[in-house]
Amino acid sequence: MTAKKSRPLILVSNDDGIFSNGIKALAETAAEFGDIEVVAPDRQQSAVGHAITVTTPLRARPFQLDNRFSGRAVNGTPADCIKLAHDKLLDRKPDLVVSGINHGSNAGINIIYSGTVSAATEGTVLGYPSIAFSCTDYDEDADMTGCREAARRVIRYVLDNGLKRGVTLNVNAPSGPLKGLRWARQAESRYVEEFEGRVDPHNRDYYWMTGKFELLEQNGGSDIDILEKGFASITPIQYDLTAKDVLRSLENTEL
Amino acid sequence: MTAKKSRPLILVSNDDGIFSNGIKALAETAAEFGDIEVVAPDRQQSAVGHAITVTTPLRARPFQLDNRFSGRAVNGTPADCIKLAHDKLLDRKPDLVVSGINHGSNAGINIIYSGTVSAATEGTVLGYPSIAFSCTDYDEDADMTGCREAARRVIRYVLDNGLKRGVTLNVNAPSGPLKGLRWARQAESRYVEEFEGRVDPHNRDYYWMTGKFELLEQNGGSDIDILEKGFASITPIQYDLTAKDVLRSLENTEL
Repeated sequence: MTAKKSRPLILVSNDDGIFSNGIKALAETAAEFGDIEVVAPDRQQSAVGHAITVTTPLRARPFQLDNRFSGRAVNGTPADCIKLAHDKLLDRKPDLVVSGINHGSNAGINIIYSGTVSAATEGTVLGYPSIAFSCTDYDEDADMTGCREAARRVIRYVLDNGLKRGVTLNVNAPSGPLKGLRWARQAESRYVEEFEGRVDPHNRDYYWMTGKFELLEQNGGSDIDILEKGFASITPIQYDLTAKDVLRSLENTEL
Repeated sequence: MTAKKSRPLILVSNDDGIFSNGIKALAETAAEFGDIEVVAPDRQQSAVGHAITVTTPLRARPFQLDNRFSGRAVNGTPADCIKLAHDKLLDRKPDLVVSGINHGSNAGINIIYSGTVSAATEGTVLGYPSIAFSCTDYDEDADMTGCREAARRVIRYVLDNGLKRGVTLNVNAPSGPLKGLRWARQAESRYVEEFEGRVDPHNRDYYWMTGKFELLEQNGGSDIDILEKGFASITPIQYDLTAKDVLRSLENTEL
């Protein structure tokens, strides 16, 4: 007699909060492969990067996602959600952590500002295979057919093959049907003309962050390049930020 | 006749806010090398990671740091401060961006949560040579003699030699006198037992983030290892998060 292998447990989070259509799409897709626990921010947490909440207490309110998936809504950041799920909220350790599907792409420099990516990165730090998913279309009602198919393929791959310790997969997909999935680098890019200055009714200056995305390279194989060609991109990313080649070139320099 | 070369402009920021002793120490040290502009958060912004503020407007209130350095206090994150300084607040482009001196080390996994590091990283994204400085002592009145000396040496080095595009230097130093400076990797590490659960007077659960730092490697040459030996550490870090070796090993895998 062999013990029946239980279904994988998949922890689902995001940065758009529990009311977004993207997290429903991701939970539904992940549910094809395992049992689902949703632990996600109780409100929009876009562009929070890898922020964590240390000076105020966190609360985790039980809720049902789409009357189907058991979940907790946390008054914190995406990274908080994963940490709290890991340490306190889950009955067993997850086999996979997925984050998204974000409404808006997280490619190029956006990766470093992204709460969606940070949830997945936190999963990786804690030792779980982890994947971030984003849709290039910001619209809350974007057609996520292709994003779901990309998620399906990447989740299946990671459950079957695992992921190297320290590595997270960052997946972006266009709205509409899936044309295909391509491995990609993070594109060298930045934002320019970032702020719109205004004057308030009390005659004081204030600034809105706006900004135009600027691609600083035209080489093939970047995430932006792959997306512009209509494919979904998969970028393996790491939280070890050491610039190893620079370290090697400088390590004999005395300061 | 040759035009007299103007002194370098050094932009100073941090995540502990404009009232910390660390930012005074850093501004004073940097002033040995150039003109100083301080643009920093108007309050504590620790552990905000690379968060940016997109949904509320930013304000920049003029102030004098220590009755000596001209500055702006911004109601935003460290990354906001650098973006706003670059785009709107400075009369000329800085030659160097420095962030710190943080009260508390930013070594190992702390790098990814650190607002201090994110200010310097944002400087790098915008194309400026940028350095983050942290003191291992959390005490507001820590002896920063050695931190100042480390800052002096690294600032001098970067002003003289520049830095490779895309690379930030992350410097940590013990309190007390400087024993020496060593190049280092980011240590593989994480936090464990992160939350303390409590029950509020209304009988509802809440959680405080606490957490014990756990070193996952014992190899020499990591930032933690260097600091434990009493030296200051310098780690070149990058915002291109692509795990290049993993990308190479997977790029022919069809999903």
